[in-house]
Amino acid sequence: MGRVPKKTDTRDRVLRTAAQLFRTQGYHATGLNQVLTEGGAPKGSLYFHFPGGKEQLAVESLRLSADEFRAELRDAGSLGAALEILGQRLVESDFREGCPIATVALDVASESPQIRQACVEAYDGWERLIAEYLTRAGVPQPAAMATVILAAVEGALLLSRTRRDLTPLREVAAHFETLAR
Amino acid sequence: MGRVPKKTDTRDRVLRTAAQLFRTQGYHATGLNQVLTEGGAPKGSLYFHFPGGKEQLAVESLRLSADEFRAELRDAGSLGAALEILGQRLVESDFREGCPIATVALDVASESPQIRQACVEAYDGWERLIAEYLTRAGVPQPAAMATVILAAVEGALLLSRTRRDLTPLREVAAHFETLAR
Repeated sequence: MGRVPKKTDTRDRVLRTAAQLFRTQGYHATGLNQVLTEGGAPKGSLYFHFPGGKEQLAVESLRLSADEFRAELRDAGSLGAALEILGQRLVESDFREGCPIATVALDVASESPQIRQACVEAYDGWERLIAEYLTRAGVPQPAAMATVILAAVEGALLLSRTRRDLTPLREVAAHFETLAR
Repeated sequence: MGRVPKKTDTRDRVLRTAAQLFRTQGYHATGLNQVLTEGGAPKGSLYFHFPGGKEQLAVESLRLSADEFRAELRDAGSLGAALEILGQRLVESDFREGCPIATVALDVASESPQIRQACVEAYDGWERLIAEYLTRAGVPQPAAMATVILAAVEGALLLSRTRRDLTPLREVAAHFETLAR
């Protein structure tokens, strides 16, 4: 007998599908039917899993992406290694997958306080992680430098994705490695 | 007798309206009817002015935004002054107007080679301008440093817009000012 899918499996699949669609094409372009179809959930089941609708789906999928991204950055062990992983992901996704937050942050966050808050928390979490790296490395003013590094990495992901070329990501990595020495 | 609006006036108004909508909410969320209504053009007149439809409208409005942005950066006279202007624009627009290219670069450029090309040309033009500043200031390896600065500024605009707070833009400005000394 085959395993009967549980409600939580469907919900998780829908959430992961939504996360992938939101980060590659933004909030507005992502239709609920597309999310359900690609997530293998019955049409019309969205409000069963997400009573708050598309906005709740966005907030939860941004949190999921942010947490996974943060875990990857942490496991990488260094900023240089983390940037290598980000570069690989860009190439493997044919330059569609850069920052999992930025697309939604730009296309909808100014219209929805809840979605904006989820984006802010994502960026705050990554910035704290970078500041922890810098503190351990004895860098002066780690909080301010973490903001600059996060900004440079976000911009490099945007430029590398748009140009289909990892040079911006590599130049940013080289710049902060030189400063660290 | 009132002045009779010329075709070019309407076309220009539509283009400017489109540019503003694309940069604040992205390509997908921007409907052609919204552009025509807000641009004061008759419904259904889009293909008269832009036979290539929404894609042509996006390409031309990205070019317009890129050229105007480049002129502003050039007239600012220094990177610090340019970042001041970007910060003012964010505040005056209630944190809706950051980079005029990034929203579209993220939400649609990977689906349209023409739109992607317009985004690439915008970033290339700004990067060359930054490299010219750096060359005049005697900074070593101006091309690579211009890429890092453009990335940091783009990321800072994204973070400042999302957080509704100019700190990221100011930290980036302070970082590169310190390096320049």
